[in-house]
Amino acid sequence: MMFVHIIEMFVRQRGHLLCHFCRCTYELLMWFDPSVDVSPGSTSEIKHNLVEQIRLFIHKVTDPLHPKVNANRPQNVKSLSHPFSREKQHLYSVFYKYQPIGLIRSYFGEKVGLYFAWLGVYTQMLIPAAIIGVIVFLYGCATVDDNIPSMEICDPRNNITMCPLCDRACSYWKLVTACGTARASHLFDNPATVFFSIFMALWAVLFMEHWKRRQMRLNYVWDLMGFGEEEEVREPQRSGSDTSDEEKVKLTCTDRLPAYLTSVVMMGFMISVTFAIVFGVILYRISIKAALHISTYPAARSNIRATVKTTAAIINLIVIIILDEIYAAIARWLTILEVPKTDKSFEERLIFKTFILKFVNAFTPIVYLAFFRGRLVGRPGNYLYVVGSYRMEECAHAGCLMELCIQLCITMLGKQLIQNNLFEIGIPKLKKLLRKRKSEVTSLQEEEVKILKRYEKDHFLGPFAGINPEYMEMIIQFGMVTLFVASFPLAPLFALLNNIIEIRLDAKKFVMELRRPIAAKAKDIGIWYNLLRGLSKVAVIVNAFVIAFTSDFIPRLVYQYAYSPDSTMHGFVNHTLSYFNVSDFQKGTAPLEPMHLHYKVQICRYKDYREPPWSSTPYDLSKEFWAILAVRLAFVIVFQNVVMLMSDFVDWLIPDIPKDISLQIHKEKILMVELFMKEEQGKRLAVQDNHNQETCTIPSSDDQSPSRPRSHSVIHSKASW
Amino acid sequence: MMFVHIIEMFVRQRGHLLCHFCRCTYELLMWFDPSVDVSPGSTSEIKHNLVEQIRLFIHKVTDPLHPKVNANRPQNVKSLSHPFSREKQHLYSVFYKYQPIGLIRSYFGEKVGLYFAWLGVYTQMLIPAAIIGVIVFLYGCATVDDNIPSMEICDPRNNITMCPLCDRACSYWKLVTACGTARASHLFDNPATVFFSIFMALWAVLFMEHWKRRQMRLNYVWDLMGFGEEEEVREPQRSGSDTSDEEKVKLTCTDRLPAYLTSVVMMGFMISVTFAIVFGVILYRISIKAALHISTYPAARSNIRATVKTTAAIINLIVIIILDEIYAAIARWLTILEVPKTDKSFEERLIFKTFILKFVNAFTPIVYLAFFRGRLVGRPGNYLYVVGSYRMEECAHAGCLMELCIQLCITMLGKQLIQNNLFEIGIPKLKKLLRKRKSEVTSLQEEEVKILKRYEKDHFLGPFAGINPEYMEMIIQFGMVTLFVASFPLAPLFALLNNIIEIRLDAKKFVMELRRPIAAKAKDIGIWYNLLRGLSKVAVIVNAFVIAFTSDFIPRLVYQYAYSPDSTMHGFVNHTLSYFNVSDFQKGTAPLEPMHLHYKVQICRYKDYREPPWSSTPYDLSKEFWAILAVRLAFVIVFQNVVMLMSDFVDWLIPDIPKDISLQIHKEKILMVELFMKEEQGKRLAVQDNHNQETCTIPSSDDQSPSRPRSHSVIHSKASW
Repeated sequence: MMFVHIIEMFVRQRGHLLCHFCRCTYELLMWFDPSVDVSPGSTSEIKHNLVEQIRLFIHKVTDPLHPKVNANRPQNVKSLSHPFSREKQHLYSVFYKYQPIGLIRSYFGEKVGLYFAWLGVYTQMLIPAAIIGVIVFLYGCATVDDNIPSMEICDPRNNITMCPLCDRACSYWKLVTACGTARASHLFDNPATVFFSIFMALWAVLFMEHWKRRQMRLNYVWDLMGFGEEEEVREPQRSGSDTSDEEKVKLTCTDRLPAYLTSVVMMGFMISVTFAIVFGVILYRISIKAALHISTYPAARSNIRATVKTTAAIINLIVIIILDEIYAAIARWLTILEVPKTDKSFEERLIFKTFILKFVNAFTPIVYLAFFRGRLVGRPGNYLYVVGSYRMEECAHAGCLMELCIQLCITMLGKQLIQNNLFEIGIPKLKKLLRKRKSEVTSLQEEEVKILKRYEKDHFLGPFAGINPEYMEMIIQFGMVTLFVASFPLAPLFALLNNIIEIRLDAKKFVMELRRPIAAKAKDIGIWYNLLRGLSKVAVIVNAFVIAFTSDFIPRLVYQYAYSPDSTMHGFVNHTLSYFNVSDFQKGTAPLEPMHLHYKVQICRYKDYREPPWSSTPYDLSKEFWAILAVRLAFVIVFQNVVMLMSDFVDWLIPDIPKDISLQIHKEKILMVELFMKEEQGKRLAVQDNHNQETCTIPSSDDQSPSRPRSHSVIHSKASW
Repeated sequence: MMFVHIIEMFVRQRGHLLCHFCRCTYELLMWFDPSVDVSPGSTSEIKHNLVEQIRLFIHKVTDPLHPKVNANRPQNVKSLSHPFSREKQHLYSVFYKYQPIGLIRSYFGEKVGLYFAWLGVYTQMLIPAAIIGVIVFLYGCATVDDNIPSMEICDPRNNITMCPLCDRACSYWKLVTACGTARASHLFDNPATVFFSIFMALWAVLFMEHWKRRQMRLNYVWDLMGFGEEEEVREPQRSGSDTSDEEKVKLTCTDRLPAYLTSVVMMGFMISVTFAIVFGVILYRISIKAALHISTYPAARSNIRATVKTTAAIINLIVIIILDEIYAAIARWLTILEVPKTDKSFEERLIFKTFILKFVNAFTPIVYLAFFRGRLVGRPGNYLYVVGSYRMEECAHAGCLMELCIQLCITMLGKQLIQNNLFEIGIPKLKKLLRKRKSEVTSLQEEEVKILKRYEKDHFLGPFAGINPEYMEMIIQFGMVTLFVASFPLAPLFALLNNIIEIRLDAKKFVMELRRPIAAKAKDIGIWYNLLRGLSKVAVIVNAFVIAFTSDFIPRLVYQYAYSPDSTMHGFVNHTLSYFNVSDFQKGTAPLEPMHLHYKVQICRYKDYREPPWSSTPYDLSKEFWAILAVRLAFVIVFQNVVMLMSDFVDWLIPDIPKDISLQIHKEKILMVELFMKEEQGKRLAVQDNHNQETCTIPSSDDQSPSRPRSHSVIHSKASW
């Protein structure tokens, strides 16, 4: 009884959309899987006919761009909840085709259509970025053997004794053991990276421009040109809370203040929770490293660094994924508390809050690695300690870029694999299963289900949750691709691979797994565009800082042109290492096993630009430090302003409206004016005509009223000539 | 005979505008000078009636905001070429009134109307900037006696011997003689300046936003909302050259290439001419300074610095003014060579070229002073020489800010006084005089002139040259106000004072001195807005550099927090001076009169951060130099990004369309839709009606066709019921 009631509500809600619904569903499904004939019984025959299958395959390859739509086909529609397993094999086979944006728009409405169009443009734009990224990476691979600094590190003849990496437990070590890391670092830290960052900044601008043009074209084709202003009509008050006591009183500022305060405080709290967790992971890393150093188990000791790095990154990833879900819920709750006036404002506030929380969540560990790790270390004999006795981490000799790279790689891949594939496929399937079991409990028979109408069966699907989570995922990915691209040139490639799958998965999810949403009109992607624009601006600065401070690009440059005796990189490694007299260790921090290297160490080296122990101001920051810092900062200024200038230039160069569209619009305007003119003329003639009828009832001459051919129906005329 | 022909042409050209013309002229003149009664003969009477004059004055003060327009007044219009002397006394008395923008638009067209509206907004926005600027200056004045560095310089007990300022001719000098300059520098170089630069960057953004809103409002009021697209209609080819062989052939890229190349080369050449002249002035300054030092005439020696600075600035000013005129002509010639396709493109290219040339012309000496002077000096014993034996100039001890300030002040005041007042009033008057004499030569009698019609008399006025020179002047002024505001906080005040006069002078010129232009429609101020936007962006960076590098703000900060033993400014002057051993002078550069100070000098001081002679690397840049450089660069990065962020925030905060206008537009849209609906309905009814007439010729019932009240004129009807 209850069920019939729900179905009834459902039909009432969507009844007016149903006529369109059937054709679109069919077309969409046909596009995904054109080889499936929908007429019952024929499926199995075709499957066994190999020749037919090959013919179909060839057809598919040679004519891929047009979705196989047969407009007047009989409306025998496939089930939306068609078994997933049957589609899967075809889902990935269409990855090279353009999306049927027109169909998506007719079926889901403009808002979802724009999302898929945007995702398409983004994925398309990722292709060149991925190619250049791979080339940059390959350049790194090719030049790794010609790289003088890593050669010097790997040369055992240099015989450099380094200071211990942790108090007491660690001992002195040979620089040559860092050979592997140094060589790996070169893959991501080479001059090509600088070029790639500039390229990616321009790429981001090009992407925005390309999307603006595409959006304009879609606006034109979808007839949304004059739609803008109507959007601002105020919706009735949204009291989104489930307790829903329909309060129609107008809320004053004082009423709203507590909610806003709660929002601000909660946001601050959430952000500090993220910081605390990241800090916790740092402490974990420090303590585990020390513990592993102490441990006598030799296998554990050998791969200490890699183990610690990887586990820490995985912990970070898990924390990010869990917090993401919590933050989404909190953001929604806070926005509901605020009682925004319109649906649009509700959506924008929710998006803004979620974006800030998720962004901070995803990027805090990365920002820490890029800009803070290894900088707040202190120096041997005067290390910086946190929370009692935890000594802050140092970077590997070749800079933190390698660790940043690992972190980015794990976060990006993990997030995409787990969140996109597991959550987006697994959870809906699980939910469907649960729902099915539930509906079985309400004793609805299989046969009963089969005879249900299309829209009745749809009720078993999950509800549509909006496309904002999809956008959010992509924006965070865009951040990963642009913000730290200087440290990880393969990011665009991973993003591309993910998106090729994502675009189809999303489409499949929307068609097969979720109820059809109520079509919503939209002219643009709204607040997301501003977020993208903001990100691409921030990216310029972040990349400038990554190149200047995280990578060794500037110190190498300065060494080569200012300090090197023969203008080559020979001696660079020695130049970056300062001297430390082991007698200057603080009490209780000297290594427990000073004879670990089998000889007595007097002077050990550490990576920093400081005065040697024998100078008048031992261990002070040296002149080289300040000179290199000045060059680094100058680089940031130059990079930022040059790239911003180039971006503005590109922005100015590419018109926002494609030439053909603007011509078309102009033509249409002229046609419109002509039409109005003609109509006006016709009206005037009609009035004249009437007037004539009234005063003299003359049939107007034929050439004067072409639009009213039957004016001779008035028979009685008084000739005036 | 010739004259009659010209008048005929003139009338034909403007005939259709004449009806409107009379009323507007009258209203405009009345607004400028409401006390003048136009009825002949009454003027002299009123002038002698003191009571009447006072009454009028009170009326003017109490009711200033509404131009005294009496719409239905008889059209006895005042002469446009009314003697200038009579208006002058009233011209400046209306400076506090709003401009009659509506009248200006009706008389001159939208384009000129927008110029005056823009100038009004700019002048209005200058008021707060000028006030804050004066406060900042007064703060400098008030704190000059508490300023420790200038106190230290002025304290004779410090007894610091400085190295000579030029080779051979100059001798050692006491720092205490720079006391006056140091105190004056503090007026413009104090912490309030930093605040003022930030304020002015935000001010520029606010100005743009304010103008956008004002423009939107004018667009709405002047009914220009839908005007935009029609502007792009292509004009017939403009072959602006005077030889005018009407070539209708389409020019290909190859045809255009030589013109473009000529443009680029000429522009490059012009810019290098400017550079060369600036360099010449520098050489003049150096050589005059040396010559004055040698001269035995004591009065010349005493005020050497001030004399040289001022004469150099005046030479620069004269060069700027002369080159400005030449560059304007060259830019026009180059643009004509390029044969742009449309009038709009012609104008934009001309503006762009003129802007670049004039901008480089006006700002090269200032940029040199701000960023290069005193930086390429070398050091005692190893000075940098140019063109043989010219030693580059040093700055005064307190930085170059003072000289920058003098240069800015002279350029700005001089440019405005000479170019605006002399050129804009003097030249037109001179031209008019010449024209008058010429027309006298063509034997037109005074009496003949008097009986001429209004539009005939207008022919004696100068031709209208467009409003672009006016815009250009203001944009260069805007550059002066925003770009180097950190060094000269009084710039907005001077600009304000100039503009209050300028706005009236321009109005007077357009009404009284020039022929009435053909009214041109325009939706916005076009390329000027982009130039303003670009300038305000560049201003942020330039100000950051001025504060960081030209002023002593950062060295003072660094000294106070890093080097000062007691965290005060005591000892700062000593810290900024390096030591030089006089035995290290290059041969032939030591002063001729070493005993000028009446004691033997062993060690002299110079302003730089270098190692002392007794260090291991004598005269190398010291660690302090690099540290301060790093802080300076860091300040630039922080300043630029913080100010840009704040600007973007302000930009985002203020909506582009005023609330009431957007509501109004929305309402109108709804009304429009309703109107269309009604009309559609009426049409449908009419068609139905016709149909009725045709098939049955029944008079339609009254309630169905309210728009066709007299349909009962059709008499013959066949009743169908």
